[in-house]
Amino acid sequence: MPLKMNAVELMAYLDEVFPQVIDDFAVDRLAEMEVDLRLKVAERHLRPGGTVSGPSMFALADCSAYAIVLAMIGRQALAVTTSCGLDFMRKPEAGRDLIGKCRLLKLGRVLAVAEILIYSEGGDQPVARANMTYSIPPR
Amino acid sequence: MPLKMNAVELMAYLDEVFPQVIDDFAVDRLAEMEVDLRLKVAERHLRPGGTVSGPSMFALADCSAYAIVLAMIGRQALAVTTSCGLDFMRKPEAGRDLIGKCRLLKLGRVLAVAEILIYSEGGDQPVARANMTYSIPPR
Amino acid sequence: MPLKMNAVELMAYLDEVFPQVIDDFAVDRLAEMEVDLRLKVAERHLRPGGTVSGPSMFALADCSAYAIVLAMIGRQALAVTTSCGLDFMRKPEAGRDLIGKCRLLKLGRVLAVAEILIYSEGGDQPVARANMTYSIPPR
Amino acid sequence: MPLKMNAVELMAYLDEVFPQVIDDFAVDRLAEMEVDLRLKVAERHLRPGGTVSGPSMFALADCSAYAIVLAMIGRQALAVTTSCGLDFMRKPEAGRDLIGKCRLLKLGRVLAVAEILIYSEGGDQPVARANMTYSIPPR
Repeated sequence: MPLKMNAVELMAYLDEVFPQVIDDFAVDRLAEMEVDLRLKVAERHLRPGGTVSGPSMFALADCSAYAIVLAMIGRQALAVTTSCGLDFMRKPEAGRDLIGKCRLLKLGRVLAVAEILIYSEGGDQPVARANMTYSIPPR
Repeated sequence: MPLKMNAVELMAYLDEVFPQVIDDFAVDRLAEMEVDLRLKVAERHLRPGGTVSGPSMFALADCSAYAIVLAMIGRQALAVTTSCGLDFMRKPEAGRDLIGKCRLLKLGRVLAVAEILIYSEGGDQPVARANMTYSIPPR
Repeated sequence: MPLKMNAVELMAYLDEVFPQVIDDFAVDRLAEMEVDLRLKVAERHLRPGGTVSGPSMFALADCSAYAIVLAMIGRQALAVTTSCGLDFMRKPEAGRDLIGKCRLLKLGRVLAVAEILIYSEGGDQPVARANMTYSIPPR
Repeated sequence: MPLKMNAVELMAYLDEVFPQVIDDFAVDRLAEMEVDLRLKVAERHLRPGGTVSGPSMFALADCSAYAIVLAMIGRQALAVTTSCGLDFMRKPEAGRDLIGKCRLLKLGRVLAVAEILIYSEGGDQPVARANMTYSIPPR
């Protein structure tokens, strides 16, 4: 099943539906059923002590899973997150971007399931793991 | 097991460790093992269309669970979120605050587990459900 | 929204679709959107040391959520579990049945979400917490 | 970090702590931080219609994660499952074993986190996804 958008089209579309996207995220890699999304870590994503906040990691997982669903099914802004799980495993390294490596495990008619591993850029151990489920409305 | 902080002390402490707290959250009710935390919904919490964003709901769940752990064990800012699950069930009503009704199910020596139901203020059906697990470091 | 089955009809139907039900489970209480389901703990549910096994607790959570969905929507055996989360919080007491107190948080057209607290009979602290999501096929 | 047991030692130990193991499971592959565990599907694992039951898939995920934790840290039977999440994505193929491909994402002093993809033997699409967290007691 081929992609319906390339990385530029995807970023343009994400910017419409998640308007904070242009400032916060970048598509590092896009392939069938897979995307690497970068969170451009800035002051507003941090907790005291320099750790990236939980909501920022949630946003990266959510946005990467949403991105690959959209890239596969095309513009269908009504797809909604129905559930997720996250494990926070290591402290992100200060001053580094986070990369969400997202893989779509299922793209069904009504549900899509993705898994995401989040890394500090350059790190080889994931800082967090996530799974996200989306409901895809009938066209 | 009695509370170690009242609502005012809790808000003051949360403001140190989650500095956005004073603007975003308020303690509506605090009791042994239970807290109701309010997300004072503002423009920055919204998605296009007026829905409260997923990261904002995650932040409410996380902050309410963290708040009741702190209120029960006292100042111990190192407690860290280790895992969570969320189900998004209904669209929050536009222009209403969200209330996270949080109950601590377990407060062990090393792990705490909380469940949270999130409501639009005045609504009787939850918009989301969450569970959060915290690791409590040895003193 | 009223129940479409009483406890006897529900047990008869569960016995068709989960054939182990008659031996393993009993409906203790059934109300709109709520059921208390009992796991009649026997040797086959135990781990060495006398703890009820994880798969047995999963089965109790799954069966209780499935039961309340069926009791609310009527015979529709195709409803399928799509996702779940469990937290194991305390060791069940040896030689006691487990009670799954299940509440349906959402009963939508295509998805149902339930939360379950599992207790050792007579205990006042939950031994486990679960959430289950079901996909309801179009009729 | 090297393995502390080989596949034969691991099966022997699992058989002590999960006594149903010899009949139900086999280690297909064992490597640092990774194991492939086979559920030898038999009548008792099935639902009407020939699908492998949810509790059986939970048991496969749990047992594979437990197995790799033990293989990495050595005999420490007290390690306990603290939480898990599962997504059921496709119907397993009738008459085939299930393979749980498990990867340990974190092996900390007190917590271990694993992710598992479950396949019908010979299939290239996962039937389920799971994450399991274990608490490792101090020695």
